Amino acid sequence: MRKSIATVSVSGTLTEKLEAIAAAGFDGVEIFENDLLACPLPPEEIRARVADLGLTIDLYQPFRDFEAVPEPVLARNLRRAEHKFRLMERLGTDLLLVCSNVSPGAIGDDELAAEHLRLLGERAAEHGIRIAYEALAWGRHVNEYLHAWRVVRMAGHPNVGTCLDSFHILSRGSDPIGIEAIPGEKIFFLQLADAPLLAMDVLQWSRHYRCFPGQGTFDVAGLVRHALNAGYPGPLSLEVFNDHFRQADTKRTARDGMRSLIALEGELVGAAHPSVPSGFAFAELADTGALGGVLSALGFARTGRHPTKPVELWEQGGARLLLNATGAESALIAIGLDSPDPAGAVKHAETLLSPVLPRERAPEEARLDAIAAPDGTQIFFCDDSWLSDFAPDARAGGEITGIDHVALTQPWHYFDEAELFYRSVLGLRPQGGLELPDPYGLLRSKAMSAPDGAVRMVVNIAQVGAGDIAWQHVALACDDILAVARRLHAEHPGLLLPIPGNYYDDLEARHEVDPELRRLGVLYDRDEDGGEFLHLYTVTMGRVFFELVQRIGGYDGYGAANAPIRLAVQHSGGD
Amino acid sequence: MRKSIATVSVSGTLTEKLEAIAAAGFDGVEIFENDLLACPLPPEEIRARVADLGLTIDLYQPFRDFEAVPEPVLARNLRRAEHKFRLMERLGTDLLLVCSNVSPGAIGDDELAAEHLRLLGERAAEHGIRIAYEALAWGRHVNEYLHAWRVVRMAGHPNVGTCLDSFHILSRGSDPIGIEAIPGEKIFFLQLADAPLLAMDVLQWSRHYRCFPGQGTFDVAGLVRHALNAGYPGPLSLEVFNDHFRQADTKRTARDGMRSLIALEGELVGAAHPSVPSGFAFAELADTGALGGVLSALGFARTGRHPTKPVELWEQGGARLLLNATGAESALIAIGLDSPDPAGAVKHAETLLSPVLPRERAPEEARLDAIAAPDGTQIFFCDDSWLSDFAPDARAGGEITGIDHVALTQPWHYFDEAELFYRSVLGLRPQGGLELPDPYGLLRSKAMSAPDGAVRMVVNIAQVGAGDIAWQHVALACDDILAVARRLHAEHPGLLLPIPGNYYDDLEARHEVDPELRRLGVLYDRDEDGGEFLHLYTVTMGRVFFELVQRIGGYDGYGAANAPIRLAVQHSGGD
Repeated sequence: MRKSIATVSVSGTLTEKLEAIAAAGFDGVEIFENDLLACPLPPEEIRARVADLGLTIDLYQPFRDFEAVPEPVLARNLRRAEHKFRLMERLGTDLLLVCSNVSPGAIGDDELAAEHLRLLGERAAEHGIRIAYEALAWGRHVNEYLHAWRVVRMAGHPNVGTCLDSFHILSRGSDPIGIEAIPGEKIFFLQLADAPLLAMDVLQWSRHYRCFPGQGTFDVAGLVRHALNAGYPGPLSLEVFNDHFRQADTKRTARDGMRSLIALEGELVGAAHPSVPSGFAFAELADTGALGGVLSALGFARTGRHPTKPVELWEQGGARLLLNATGAESALIAIGLDSPDPAGAVKHAETLLSPVLPRERAPEEARLDAIAAPDGTQIFFCDDSWLSDFAPDARAGGEITGIDHVALTQPWHYFDEAELFYRSVLGLRPQGGLELPDPYGLLRSKAMSAPDGAVRMVVNIAQVGAGDIAWQHVALACDDILAVARRLHAEHPGLLLPIPGNYYDDLEARHEVDPELRRLGVLYDRDEDGGEFLHLYTVTMGRVFFELVQRIGGYDGYGAANAPIRLAVQHSGGD
Repeated sequence: MRKSIATVSVSGTLTEKLEAIAAAGFDGVEIFENDLLACPLPPEEIRARVADLGLTIDLYQPFRDFEAVPEPVLARNLRRAEHKFRLMERLGTDLLLVCSNVSPGAIGDDELAAEHLRLLGERAAEHGIRIAYEALAWGRHVNEYLHAWRVVRMAGHPNVGTCLDSFHILSRGSDPIGIEAIPGEKIFFLQLADAPLLAMDVLQWSRHYRCFPGQGTFDVAGLVRHALNAGYPGPLSLEVFNDHFRQADTKRTARDGMRSLIALEGELVGAAHPSVPSGFAFAELADTGALGGVLSALGFARTGRHPTKPVELWEQGGARLLLNATGAESALIAIGLDSPDPAGAVKHAETLLSPVLPRERAPEEARLDAIAAPDGTQIFFCDDSWLSDFAPDARAGGEITGIDHVALTQPWHYFDEAELFYRSVLGLRPQGGLELPDPYGLLRSKAMSAPDGAVRMVVNIAQVGAGDIAWQHVALACDDILAVARRLHAEHPGLLLPIPGNYYDDLEARHEVDPELRRLGVLYDRDEDGGEFLHLYTVTMGRVFFELVQRIGGYDGYGAANAPIRLAVQHSGGD
């Protein structure tokens, strides 16, 4: 299907927007009036610029507060419309969005509204222009999409149709199945936006919190399916108002929007994700020298070396870590995911506009397919062959059984991007977002996991207050965390993050817990079904630290209630 | 009155918070539990630290989901309370905030709630502790302050009283006059927060958007007056949850909170502002050489020089500008305000914790009293004597009649501070806030004015996207802007900011306006009462630019609808 996007959805000047939109591969744009008004180019030059970029102008918008008004206002509004028709002729576009009247002076009379729209349709027809009438969720009298369609049908003019907007429909909780009552050719336009579920005034919600399909909680694909069932022939067009998108990089946002439409198309055809990862193959850490000792302390053994690169393999149970002796500071630089079809996974990621990373390798080395995650971390899709490069001498057993989850940071203003990326590119499912109090701000956090929990990722927003928190961590699973903690306390005091005694006073007020938790600095959480989570942290080395976790009784979270304690201790440098 | 603040209201670790709170001059603190849990110091050391800082711990909070629960939960809750009582003994505090139960398991039975609170009161009394029961606005069953008082009265225990919180009361639209029905000695605590009027879920509103009294729209002073009428003997205590405060400088926020309580006390005693400015005496600009020519072009004449400093006086009509040949770039560095009592104004500002600026002057020079505005701009309170320093040779007439307004920028995270500052320190009144679309983000803007409009200030938030917009401007009033614009176009092409033709296409669609506006690049706005505003801008020099404005028919705004056009042109460098 043709793909379009409203210029308001991305940051920048109109010309910057158009260039980014074309570069992302869109077919068309909706010109948002304010973007045009602020542009120094005359409409004819904008038209030429759009054409040069291989785009079409699919819609001009919005035309406000037109219909169902007293006579003198109608005359002014028709005069105003004539100006816009002439402008649209200069721009070379023939579809005008008219959104339902929000003014206190609007009259609640469908026949009057229809009569005015017919009048507008007649005037528009003289210019070869069509009118797409849309119900704003906060329209004065018309605020339901079926009500807008009723008025359009009453208007009975071939140049008057309706515009559907997924936000306006789904934010009100309206059932989109009614779309199938509208003849497809009378659906002149379809605008798409998702949004997180927020309990707030719908106008503010719409103006600040819309996001691209797949980044929120609406079933946008379901709505599109109804429009296609109705026979809608036009483009899928994104129209998003989002405070972060307004401040983010224009090209990056446009590409993210295109990714959302590609993923939506996949959802429409019911395409199963070709390669949901089945586990962590490895996590790779840049090492400036300190990490080998830490891994030894944690019970890992070095089991192999890469033949041509300064990379060591460390193993324990099912957990494999690579230490890479390049890089300026200790950091998590790559994640390997067990994939049933590595080549298919990369191809899928490429389809979704993810950068595929070039990989130098010797002819005899295993092929490794990697892409870049939004924060720059490399993601490898692996079968078992990669291990042969390292020729591991033995599998090392121990207390740790595998990688439980990996936590990455996401750049400021790009949090919504992460959810769509991990959902569409890796096939993970969102487990819900959180806000965590940090001593210097609120940290946004979102967990994503494979359906069976075999791969879990946590994404944190990287900025709090004035500074960046670029911390990442690898959480390692074990079956007896108290035993591990006992050993670490005895043999490696100073490796573990100290937990304040006040935390245990509170924990003991809430739960009857083993007093050893306090002595060992092990944190505790409990879910509503009695599932338990015990965990502890190492101190931070460079940008990275380790967590040890033990899940009991089906606990599916990440101990979020304890994260503020960890953050406060980390900020204080562990003292 | 004693002044207190909850540790959650400011950023940082607990020890940083306590130091900043003491430095700001508070008498006491509410210890917010999460701050304590994350603190490595044991309660006894926190107690000593608080005492060393000259503070008292006035409240420990919150104790959640206690009352009106089934029997087994009650037993657990009492056990939990015993732990907290022991903690409070170690901390040396005797007042515990119990907020109304929000859990789905809570039972809607006031008698049961009262019975449980009495039981808690009995246990507390054994430790010398008192219970302050508060209705959360989103409490499951108890969410009105008079309902909480009803339950407290039914509990009938001397150690059980109520806690009032201005946010929980005013956010629900409850009338606070009912406070006078509560015996003062049963009001165990009074928490104060203001908030902007937002149509959103009250829990989210409370957790993210509270602000200090005087920064929002609630009548906090009116509520406090009712509590004092009831005989409330305790402290005024700030409890604010605010995303910006969480990320702002700890000391600065604490000082801002103290300023809000001082201003509130002034409001309580009905103190009139001692020195509301009656006009602009001058605006002072750092000049690197370019501004003299611009002022000449605008019709200003140099009428005097400072005897000892590299400062020139330029005049036209009632507008006086000082050009100061120090500074690295052209910028607005000071504002002089005509004050009926300069010394009184400075003393008032000092009372409100504003930094008074030291001022070097020769013995024969006029005394100038200055303070620093939140953005660092110097504010002078002036009588006529300052002019004598410059010995102006003549008053210069011309097209410009005076300074209409001055626009400053406010650092990111400190927007709320500005409203309180201009309101309390200068006696200006807020005219309402706005969000202005900028090509790279949303700009927050707020106008403040003296009651008669003789002094108008606009404060803009300084950050959009990744960068700062540090632009400031001086708006000059005139009676015939078209004449000025004609002259400037003829004599100084290039001085005026070019306005896109597309703007005029839209303007002409909406209004029948003089076609000369387009030719001259004059912007136009019209209010609902037919008042008109014509304005134009110069290009930016360093950080500063000039606006020329003409107000017709009682127009009281600032042409906000046109600001996005200006911002877009400014970002594009005027090309």
